Amino acid sequence: MHAGKGEAMNASEAYSRLSDHSKQVSYLGSVIALLHWDERTQIPSKGHPHRVGQLTALAKMYHKMTTDPVIGELLSVVEIPDLTSDKLSVEAVNIREWRRIYDRAVKIPEKLAVELARAAAQGQAVWEKARPQDDWPLFKPYLEQIIALKREQAEALGYENEPYDALLDNYEQGETVSDLEPIFEQLVTALVKLLHRIQSSSRCRDSSSIEGRRYPIVDQEAFGKDVARRIGYDMEAGRLDVSAHPFTTGIGPGDVRITTRYKIDSFTEAFFGVIHEAGHAMYHQGLPMEHWGTPICRPVSLGLNESQARTWENLIARSEAFWNYFYPQAQARFPSLREVSREDFYFSINLVTPSLIRTEADEVTYNIHVLLRFELEVMLTRGELEVEDLPDAWNMKMQKYIGLVPPTHKDGVMQDIHWSSGAIGYFPTYTLGNLYAAQFLKRAEQDLGDLNSSMAGGDFTPLLLWFREKIHSQGCRYLPRVLVQTVTGEDLNPMYLINYLERKYSEIYKL
Amino acid sequence: MHAGKGEAMNASEAYSRLSDHSKQVSYLGSVIALLHWDERTQIPSKGHPHRVGQLTALAKMYHKMTTDPVIGELLSVVEIPDLTSDKLSVEAVNIREWRRIYDRAVKIPEKLAVELARAAAQGQAVWEKARPQDDWPLFKPYLEQIIALKREQAEALGYENEPYDALLDNYEQGETVSDLEPIFEQLVTALVKLLHRIQSSSRCRDSSSIEGRRYPIVDQEAFGKDVARRIGYDMEAGRLDVSAHPFTTGIGPGDVRITTRYKIDSFTEAFFGVIHEAGHAMYHQGLPMEHWGTPICRPVSLGLNESQARTWENLIARSEAFWNYFYPQAQARFPSLREVSREDFYFSINLVTPSLIRTEADEVTYNIHVLLRFELEVMLTRGELEVEDLPDAWNMKMQKYIGLVPPTHKDGVMQDIHWSSGAIGYFPTYTLGNLYAAQFLKRAEQDLGDLNSSMAGGDFTPLLLWFREKIHSQGCRYLPRVLVQTVTGEDLNPMYLINYLERKYSEIYKL
Repeated sequence: MHAGKGEAMNASEAYSRLSDHSKQVSYLGSVIALLHWDERTQIPSKGHPHRVGQLTALAKMYHKMTTDPVIGELLSVVEIPDLTSDKLSVEAVNIREWRRIYDRAVKIPEKLAVELARAAAQGQAVWEKARPQDDWPLFKPYLEQIIALKREQAEALGYENEPYDALLDNYEQGETVSDLEPIFEQLVTALVKLLHRIQSSSRCRDSSSIEGRRYPIVDQEAFGKDVARRIGYDMEAGRLDVSAHPFTTGIGPGDVRITTRYKIDSFTEAFFGVIHEAGHAMYHQGLPMEHWGTPICRPVSLGLNESQARTWENLIARSEAFWNYFYPQAQARFPSLREVSREDFYFSINLVTPSLIRTEADEVTYNIHVLLRFELEVMLTRGELEVEDLPDAWNMKMQKYIGLVPPTHKDGVMQDIHWSSGAIGYFPTYTLGNLYAAQFLKRAEQDLGDLNSSMAGGDFTPLLLWFREKIHSQGCRYLPRVLVQTVTGEDLNPMYLINYLERKYSEIYKL
Repeated sequence: MHAGKGEAMNASEAYSRLSDHSKQVSYLGSVIALLHWDERTQIPSKGHPHRVGQLTALAKMYHKMTTDPVIGELLSVVEIPDLTSDKLSVEAVNIREWRRIYDRAVKIPEKLAVELARAAAQGQAVWEKARPQDDWPLFKPYLEQIIALKREQAEALGYENEPYDALLDNYEQGETVSDLEPIFEQLVTALVKLLHRIQSSSRCRDSSSIEGRRYPIVDQEAFGKDVARRIGYDMEAGRLDVSAHPFTTGIGPGDVRITTRYKIDSFTEAFFGVIHEAGHAMYHQGLPMEHWGTPICRPVSLGLNESQARTWENLIARSEAFWNYFYPQAQARFPSLREVSREDFYFSINLVTPSLIRTEADEVTYNIHVLLRFELEVMLTRGELEVEDLPDAWNMKMQKYIGLVPPTHKDGVMQDIHWSSGAIGYFPTYTLGNLYAAQFLKRAEQDLGDLNSSMAGGDFTPLLLWFREKIHSQGCRYLPRVLVQTVTGEDLNPMYLINYLERKYSEIYKL
């Protein structure tokens, strides 16, 4: 791109050139997303090394385009009150985001960017090998290097109070440790208390009536697609495939794909996975596509994106009203469920069990797993905790919050992929997603009236349309916390999630 | 890319920079190939418009990279006897091809390149609409524009005798009308004579014993994969999917994918399609991968590529020895075949029937369909035939060669996609493929001894290894005709194909 030096350029011409450039970058980004999707769902086993070559070549082009100094020149032309004074206009939002993306890109020296990319790729590869063998000493030096580089990255990006804030901002713009800590503390205190009450209840010994039965995979796939379509995932603009780790990828308008994984003897794993990913996908499908290729047509943050997945997976698909409608269909599809009453089924999909693994955790304990990671990440980033001492710190916190000590590193400190790939600051967005979800749903119920009756009739349109209008179609017009305030009329408040969980599980466990 | 003006640059440095550039271009090309594969096999229906945007963005990058003037500067540094005097060295071949690709790219003015791309995209879209409605008047003006642009392209590229030679060279380097005409004439004369003898034989009234029966698609897929693997297609480095028009795409080392299409009541359509594409795929899998990203690691021409597909599809998979081995497996897999004798099966897969449609034609009449198109293309390119008069010319030739007149344009002049997308000069490569295949196989039999006995034992390795050594691993070291001379010790000679067909069909039809 050339700025066309020497020519006079007005702001609207510069804006249109930034838009064009942004679209080209977005096309390249969406091609990279497709290559990742193919790598995780379709590629023949011997094709992986070539895929690395393709992705490296595209990453170079992408890096070159996103750090082109002309962007800085054009930005200085468009940053004028005419275009930016109405902070909520499409132009102002795009200019705000272009500036943010460009500044963050150029703040990272190329050497550091290359080292981070290499360390992340290496770390992930080593983790994939070390985890199944429970080999912490193998993984440790790679994690040490990643933490050192992330601390360097935080310094390069800059921050006011906490180095962790600079990393968190990668995933949840504007979020900070000092804003999060009191909320997370209030939440974890309430959850640990709720967990103890559940554990001392008489129903706590009841086990699942549905796991361990047979659910043929073709039927799981068909049922998952039926339900995903019914709640509003447009499958003519998407598809469902199998991958080792489920994910959603928004390739572009008309093309938002999801994946899941099946176990023949588990109903819940694939089903709630599909609904979770369909929740992400519906968010993508509802973005303001007329602006595709510019920043405003993007999910505002990981937490907001997660809120959409958690709403459908938990608040909706683990509710009684939902299964009032769907359970007869599930029983018709799966002979295994015909001898299970709807009440037992509902109890089984909402079983609370303290466990070692985050991804298998229920609604009550899930956020405790996240908070533990958040606390450790903040300490690591500050330099208050060394990687050397991380396993002990992990185990102590597990004992304190969940009451269990992992017998292996595999099911303890090495269980998640995130740290191995350099994703520090990512975990809190899961809990933010749950917090946003509960607060949004409360507001939706105030706006729409009781949702249970429409859900019991199989009609999910009112809720989807509410999300479309209030959240999806806004793209990243508002920063996350501002969006919460705008939609609900209130700051982020953990009491919505706490109340929802206390009410639901008091009833289920007859507390 | 920058040539680094002002610095002294030696030839080996320039060569290495050309190699790097070539690899980056090849990565981008292989990404484009993957996007096309996804578009034809996986994409959700609403994803097509976005795919056009992705491909357009990549095409721009690709065009910019392949016409970068620095390539010309670097080429002038490497074109020295040290690197080019041994014409068969990797360096000389790469330099020869880089020069050829670059010169051809820069000879086409950008305006013409854009118009050609637009006319091809438009022409294909209109053809897809017009063909099912048999609407020649709708299609005609688009074809007129395409022919005019192709004539302009031929002038821009330059030629010695025939404008058509410039277009043919796109697909079959070094081939010319004056070299092809006598060969094609000799072939068509022999084939028409053979067809007449078949048509007056007593067996000519016998019909297929296998079409119209039931072949469950899962079994067709499993059987096709079994056989493809057995003949040597490495499916850990490939995959088989469904598409409207079957194709092979070499994404890169370890990733060569094929497609087919299934009909529940046809054994032959999918099966021979799979073997045909597996033939292409095995060629790709045998290329000299240590040079991937540079020209030498490419199929030398469409005709050579086709020869590999035709060898496996026709010369091998329609032979008696092949089915001596595979027929019991086919009968075990498909109950429909249990009442069909191996002799009747063999006759059925080799039925000769004059027909209107090239893609459905048998081994004897197939090349007649191609020769007809070749003659028309040469006349169109010379300006001796107007598009206006094309349907009449088509029908007259069909009457003369095949003895049938198409009742519709849909089954006549509008049946193929090629012209609509600007692929003029492509058809002859199909017949060249058949000619090469027969001549190569004769030579392989001289080198390896009788292949029937190893085939009857299910061993296809000797033939595959012969192709690997003589053809696949050579990449485009030799131009097509030189490769034929090098491998067989003789110029391209149509008598090999004629003799093969006369011998085979004299036996089948008891002539």
